[in-house]
Amino acid sequence: MIQTLYFENDDVIILDQSRLPDEVVYLRCQSPEEVAEAIKRLQVRGAPLIGVTAVFGLVMAVRKYTGPEHELPAYMEQVAALMCSTRPTAVNLFWAIRHIKSLFYDHWSEGREKTVAWLRDEAERMFAADVTINKAIGEKGQQLLKPATRIMTICNAGALATCGYGTALGVIRAASEQKKIKQVYACETRPVLQGARLTVWELMQDNIPVTLITDNMAGYVMSRGMVDAVIAGADRIAANGDTANKIGTYGLAVLARYHHIPFYIAAPLSTFDNEIHSGQEIPIEERHPEEVLQLGGKLITVPEVNVFNPAFDVTPGSLITAIITEKGIIRPAQN
Amino acid sequence: MIQTLYFENDDVIILDQSRLPDEVVYLRCQSPEEVAEAIKRLQVRGAPLIGVTAVFGLVMAVRKYTGPEHELPAYMEQVAALMCSTRPTAVNLFWAIRHIKSLFYDHWSEGREKTVAWLRDEAERMFAADVTINKAIGEKGQQLLKPATRIMTICNAGALATCGYGTALGVIRAASEQKKIKQVYACETRPVLQGARLTVWELMQDNIPVTLITDNMAGYVMSRGMVDAVIAGADRIAANGDTANKIGTYGLAVLARYHHIPFYIAAPLSTFDNEIHSGQEIPIEERHPEEVLQLGGKLITVPEVNVFNPAFDVTPGSLITAIITEKGIIRPAQN
Repeated sequence: MIQTLYFENDDVIILDQSRLPDEVVYLRCQSPEEVAEAIKRLQVRGAPLIGVTAVFGLVMAVRKYTGPEHELPAYMEQVAALMCSTRPTAVNLFWAIRHIKSLFYDHWSEGREKTVAWLRDEAERMFAADVTINKAIGEKGQQLLKPATRIMTICNAGALATCGYGTALGVIRAASEQKKIKQVYACETRPVLQGARLTVWELMQDNIPVTLITDNMAGYVMSRGMVDAVIAGADRIAANGDTANKIGTYGLAVLARYHHIPFYIAAPLSTFDNEIHSGQEIPIEERHPEEVLQLGGKLITVPEVNVFNPAFDVTPGSLITAIITEKGIIRPAQN
Repeated sequence: MIQTLYFENDDVIILDQSRLPDEVVYLRCQSPEEVAEAIKRLQVRGAPLIGVTAVFGLVMAVRKYTGPEHELPAYMEQVAALMCSTRPTAVNLFWAIRHIKSLFYDHWSEGREKTVAWLRDEAERMFAADVTINKAIGEKGQQLLKPATRIMTICNAGALATCGYGTALGVIRAASEQKKIKQVYACETRPVLQGARLTVWELMQDNIPVTLITDNMAGYVMSRGMVDAVIAGADRIAANGDTANKIGTYGLAVLARYHHIPFYIAAPLSTFDNEIHSGQEIPIEERHPEEVLQLGGKLITVPEVNVFNPAFDVTPGSLITAIITEKGIIRPAQN
């Protein structure tokens, strides 16, 4: 399985996902600013993975810190704020940073060196735990699927979006191990094409049958009776089950409901934001028009045209058949 | 208004839409084979326009024919079959060829020269009639819209898809003349991007406010209350109102219904195929995987991946609020 993120000596090494599937290239980040930049530019992406990546960046910053000891907490807070400013929608980022900050304050009276050891161990533990969590999600999720299942998915909620194995693709992987997967329809997922670039690549590496479609083909494919279930990941889930995920997820949920196809979200419990009651409170990131205007560096339209580029949408809990977590299956109340 | 198609001496001149909006380039077709090839390659596209283009190609063939007079009907039939083999879904093509063939047989006893004059006059008349029809569609359609309307559309059912003025964009143009258009959301329309390349270009030329979105943003834009009506063109309409149009139209219709937004089809009566009872009988063209795998010559995914590339889908009449024709508004029975 491909490694998405690791420490090498004092640096954070990130698989540059913006260059997949053309090239497998790693990015060496030597400062927290470089890590933050990689997150902003989508060189590393996926809600669970950016949380752990931000933690790796913060741990590196504390480790490389050379200023006066008493100013370390202020510096750590500054780096934490930098990491939290990278992307607004995925809650795992804020959860992971809050978690590592709390560990920092638990230990920093023991001195910088011991604190760094604690933090680094915890970062590695979080990385490993994410893989374990995804395997549990996969195992629980595959039980919902029948043999010869044809699944539609969007974006990449795979090994590349996590520390390994994946959430939505974790369910598909676990089902594939049970020989239950007949076909996966990967929506290409404009504008950044995580479906075409990442999900296709990941599934082909595992010899799981995958067919690529453009996003606007989803309804037709469902109407032809070619889909048994839709599975997507999540960036943030409100207390009522409303789920923010990659733009287009909501449209698939509406289409799935219209065609009586079950619609599943696969996500770790850290994706839940119990501080908000409904999806209306989830901030939706709007990204640069260039992502829509261009494809692979080539301009596809009139450069001066007005563009709307929301990166996420919110699927109401009432359209979600079940949310698959590492602890079990949650069925939003409205179902 | 840009000219999409005309005769120049003995040749057929076609605006090469595959190169828009980068360049305005015309293609000189000197044989019916070149016209057929331009239709297949989407250098000329749009249901009403390919019908008239095929007629122009056939008229040119008859005019340039140098063989024995008694073999002309057989040659004409051969060219008609070639034109009909270019694309299977849009019915206007078959309607237009049937119409010009019938005129040929009405007149060919008068000799080749007179027949050619009849055919050429009729081809020019069909071209002009299409513009008149579209203006009538526009005038009838705009009456359905309130002031400050925000419209979503897909593909390009504009001046470029017709002999001028457009069907869906004809309604938008007529509404804009009445100062009723606040915003048009153009779905980019993968894989060939007729929305991003053609609709955006056309509307900007007319100073009609347009915002480009990717296809998977449609649901989110509707959920935010940003759309008052969806208007699309049509390639073939069955007797029960089921409508084949560009892939993704069906998904927009389902989303529009879910959000209680009216969904309109704008099309000339020649789009109706009364020989078929429902959309299930409409042949759906599947095009080359390359359209999905590449963009502007750049590969966007793993080249070996399996691809499904249907160019059209069918929207059931029950999801269509009204079909806007040149003779009036048709409301499919199920509404």
